[in-house]
Amino acid sequence: LYTVRAALQPFLQVSSLTDLYNAYKTMPVSYALVGHCLFLAALAPEFKHRFLVHFWMTFLAGFGGGTLTAVLMMDPVRAPIGVLANNSIGVTWFICWWLMVYSPFNIVNRIHSLPPIKMVTKLCVTFMRANLIINRVDLAVTMFPGVIAAPLILGTLAGSGGKLIMDAIRHHWGGLPGPAEASVPTFVWRSAVLAAGGYWAACKYTSLLSSQEAAALVITVLLAHSLLSDMFGDKYT
Amino acid sequence: LYTVRAALQPFLQVSSLTDLYNAYKTMPVSYALVGHCLFLAALAPEFKHRFLVHFWMTFLAGFGGGTLTAVLMMDPVRAPIGVLANNSIGVTWFICWWLMVYSPFNIVNRIHSLPPIKMVTKLCVTFMRANLIINRVDLAVTMFPGVIAAPLILGTLAGSGGKLIMDAIRHHWGGLPGPAEASVPTFVWRSAVLAAGGYWAACKYTSLLSSQEAAALVITVLLAHSLLSDMFGDKYT
Amino acid sequence: LYTVRAALQPFLQVSSLTDLYNAYKTMPVSYALVGHCLFLAALAPEFKHRFLVHFWMTFLAGFGGGTLTAVLMMDPVRAPIGVLANNSIGVTWFICWWLMVYSPFNIVNRIHSLPPIKMVTKLCVTFMRANLIINRVDLAVTMFPGVIAAPLILGTLAGSGGKLIMDAIRHHWGGLPGPAEASVPTFVWRSAVLAAGGYWAACKYTSLLSSQEAAALVITVLLAHSLLSDMFGDKYT
Ligand SMILES: [Mg+2]
Ligand SMILES: [Mg+2]
Ligand SMILES: [Mg+2]
Repeated sequence: LYTVRAALQPFLQVSSLTDLYNAYKTMPVSYALVGHCLFLAALAPEFKHRFLVHFWMTFLAGFGGGTLTAVLMMDPVRAPIGVLANNSIGVTWFICWWLMVYSPFNIVNRIHSLPPIKMVTKLCVTFMRANLIINRVDLAVTMFPGVIAAPLILGTLAGSGGKLIMDAIRHHWGGLPGPAEASVPTFVWRSAVLAAGGYWAACKYTSLLSSQEAAALVITVLLAHSLLSDMFGDKYT
Repeated sequence: LYTVRAALQPFLQVSSLTDLYNAYKTMPVSYALVGHCLFLAALAPEFKHRFLVHFWMTFLAGFGGGTLTAVLMMDPVRAPIGVLANNSIGVTWFICWWLMVYSPFNIVNRIHSLPPIKMVTKLCVTFMRANLIINRVDLAVTMFPGVIAAPLILGTLAGSGGKLIMDAIRHHWGGLPGPAEASVPTFVWRSAVLAAGGYWAACKYTSLLSSQEAAALVITVLLAHSLLSDMFGDKYT
Repeated sequence: LYTVRAALQPFLQVSSLTDLYNAYKTMPVSYALVGHCLFLAALAPEFKHRFLVHFWMTFLAGFGGGTLTAVLMMDPVRAPIGVLANNSIGVTWFICWWLMVYSPFNIVNRIHSLPPIKMVTKLCVTFMRANLIINRVDLAVTMFPGVIAAPLILGTLAGSGGKLIMDAIRHHWGGLPGPAEASVPTFVWRSAVLAAGGYWAACKYTSLLSSQEAAALVITVLLAHSLLSDMFGDKYT
């Protein structure tokens, strides 16, 4: 628990949004990545018997948005494909996925399904997702100056691409519970559009807020939403 | 109507194919883009209740060929993805789509479905499509000198990629009226192959015609075909 | 037959793996390409009445892995899309495909279905595939130094991407005989993972073998497997 206290320490002295942003910056990304991977590997358990489909489907659910936007931006330097360019992503993912699917007596999965644990990993997913949306909007504004569609499309795809690809794969293996994200856009797409659009409007199109402040705001709103929807159930959101 | 007469003015003094090409060059692309977007936004009305699917399906029907060939050419400078690199594309598309789908009493759609209006917007689509095919063949010849397959594949994909993607999306939402373009290639694919192949053969592989003359010929043939098929019905073509 | 003896000549003086590698290097790639294309064009004959689907499906079955990895690596110089950058690929493919599908009295197809002939063309496919896997692992190691996932993913995709794409296309046209490659990974995926993983482990991650030796080993194992599975039937493998 010591590390948790240490991690939260910078948040206690936050007095402005920029401090909040710096506090977020101190968050250890590698831990967030572990939480992110654990939460994703626990998705679509009904596909576990088809390990290859499950491996790639859950992987793309988390990293699909980043990969899709990277391919569309065609700039391997500024927007590389994460799993190819960054060793820790591939290694962390493989270990988390293997633990979640093949751990003896399914312990990891059981522990992970305890509400408090799941809440933390879901926060990690939200944290990574918020950062990816912000990163893609920033990149789109620098790479395509003066183009309104670029940050909005790339920001939204970064936030919802994963879910879109997973629905497509699930649809093809007949495993799609409800309608696809694209047919009936759920929170995932709406939050991606609002986050991308809000961030872009707040600090790019207008200079209402500085980039740091807008980023801090977006991350906090998404994290709060994830927390509240876990506590009070989805209908609240 | 004054603008129409002004637009057609250069066509009156045309005495050679090159003049015709220069006349085409004077066409205001932004107006053609508006017509292009209006015609596309009116497609697949049965999907209107699913706005996100309709938005992207009709968008890709028009810009899919360009996007697909851009990704395959991997040259963000010479062949960028239109909607990301060019602000007017994103803005024009959003406005036209919104008007066509959400205009009060559906006026825009109703006006657009009047035959003469629809004929003009279809001409705009054909004009944009012909220019894209020619652009992709030119680019392919410069980027892949001496390769026969490059201009043919990229030119054909530029002209038929949109329809291929739209059929794929329609197929997945169970909305495909007839067989997919790929199964039973219709005019769209045939005209793309003939336009790309004809242009390439006429002015790249052989120097029968100069690039301008060949381009003028291809554009005129496609425009004439669009006009005649509207007037005398599809069976004529 | 003279050429066959000449081709096999270097193999007779092989005394070490490196010699074997150099012997492979003397293999005329253009002949291997012809065998590769003939074998592929003979696939999925039930789709022949839909020439466009058959053309692209059998093309992607052979070149899909290379194209997919090229798009993911986003480096048109080091990993261009074969058919666009190399004239002989497009030309050889078109001729072989046309002969296999449209040759009078279907002679080419009949000759090709004679076991010994089919064995040779299957060896060509295996030879091209082994070289592509090795090439992609080499490239991935240079482009993404220190990243374990890159060579494994790109090597595996290079070797199994074609089959994955073909299964996807077949699935959509209702022609998929058995379960898709992704659901029940067959020899294709397993051999791709083992070849990519084995080569990477042997000469990249460790320096157990030099690159030439590891390459020679991988090519020989895959060729031997192709030969044996043809002679003694699949259950052997
Ligand atoms: Mg959107
Ligand atoms: Mg074609
Ligand atoms: Mg794999």
